[in-house]
Amino acid sequence: MRYVRFEDNTGTIREGKIIEGKINSGNRLYQPSDLKILPPSRPTKIVCVGLNYEDHIQETGRDIPKRPSLFLKGPNCIARHEETIELLPKKDRIDFEAELGVVIGNRCKDVTAEEAMDFVKGFTCVNDVSNRDDQRIEQNWVRGKSFDKSCPFGPYIATVDSVPHQAKITLKQNGKIRQTSSIDKMIFSVPELIEEITSYMTLEKGDLIATGTSSGVGPIGDKDIIEVEIEGIGTLVNYFRRL
Amino acid sequence: MRYVRFEDNTGTIREGKIIEGKINSGNRLYQPSDLKILPPSRPTKIVCVGLNYEDHIQETGRDIPKRPSLFLKGPNCIARHEETIELLPKKDRIDFEAELGVVIGNRCKDVTAEEAMDFVKGFTCVNDVSNRDDQRIEQNWVRGKSFDKSCPFGPYIATVDSVPHQAKITLKQNGKIRQTSSIDKMIFSVPELIEEITSYMTLEKGDLIATGTSSGVGPIGDKDIIEVEIEGIGTLVNYFRRL
Repeated sequence: MRYVRFEDNTGTIREGKIIEGKINSGNRLYQPSDLKILPPSRPTKIVCVGLNYEDHIQETGRDIPKRPSLFLKGPNCIARHEETIELLPKKDRIDFEAELGVVIGNRCKDVTAEEAMDFVKGFTCVNDVSNRDDQRIEQNWVRGKSFDKSCPFGPYIATVDSVPHQAKITLKQNGKIRQTSSIDKMIFSVPELIEEITSYMTLEKGDLIATGTSSGVGPIGDKDIIEVEIEGIGTLVNYFRRL
Repeated sequence: MRYVRFEDNTGTIREGKIIEGKINSGNRLYQPSDLKILPPSRPTKIVCVGLNYEDHIQETGRDIPKRPSLFLKGPNCIARHEETIELLPKKDRIDFEAELGVVIGNRCKDVTAEEAMDFVKGFTCVNDVSNRDDQRIEQNWVRGKSFDKSCPFGPYIATVDSVPHQAKITLKQNGKIRQTSSIDKMIFSVPELIEEITSYMTLEKGDLIATGTSSGVGPIGDKDIIEVEIEGIGTLVNYFRRL
């Protein structure tokens, strides 16, 4: 099953399910292409994981961490599927990063890995847009990672059972494949991440965990179209502008 | 003028003003001591500043930063005046840090220092509770700074004109003074911080900026009572428990 939030043509925000390519909401069927697809949840916070794929760790020249490397993005980072994103001005390098997103279904704290998936609503696609100019020189990656619209996610939330264990994750830049991996290559699994994160903080319904990127990250240029596709979920598309 | 949010004895959440030591809300007067005082705003994010007082920079052995050193706390960190806070278990050192808090009054982005104060609702007291065990060893201070209840703030929001330019900030641990400074000793001023932060992110109404601590930070013990007092605002009191 896949869930969607959208704005209908009266401006009303609705939730629905994707059934045979159409959105089913209330007693009505909608064509996804006619609608504004909204971020599929409303996170109060976004907990991100760095260095969670070996090939990406190699390209950054770092070591495999002993425990998940965490950082935060605020709600100001939220952007929707098909949104046009104006990147920070005067930066040399702002990169795309394709990631599996985990959407929390129920408030939780101190959850064990064994029970963690009970608190997950499902999976989504994330582009963890990263400003390397600042990330490189700051202790905490606030300017580097938490600038406005730096976390487009969506288009749907797919329940865990509808996403293959080895689901492919692919990022295309203007149609060319730049990143390709599969979600079983994560060093710290989704249940392990939830156990670790909730030993420090309560996760709320709708909160998002961005689980890290594979190798192939690269700079976003003006007028780029970036697509993040995960098998079983769908394709998150965004249009970028450099000022 | 000082603003307060509170829960009355029917459980209704109300906003009011402090007039002659009493809370004025609607047409009623309340005694602050009879009520549950709530966090004076509901931040969507908390932007914190490290290393913003010279004497604290000296005690940490670091250099004066060329631009504000920023980090984030999520909404899970919010705690209220007079709340009893159970600290993270199994940590050797969790510290208090007295700070001036800035509460945003209106959504803003790309604000200049000159116009910044137009977007400020007022000032409050913050205790930036910090878990040094993890902060010391992580790149981004997520476990170190963004654990549940690590950001008590309040009790009131005082408008800018009611807080002296050189207002004293004092922290007491079980009645003994541990930190004492004045808010004019900040390296980066409030308007400069707002200009810098909003060049990267939109600040929302209610968002909180914690502006950094002076020297004297130290560990919190079981059953400690920590008070953060700022001239013109009031005294934030919290009770701590170590597990």
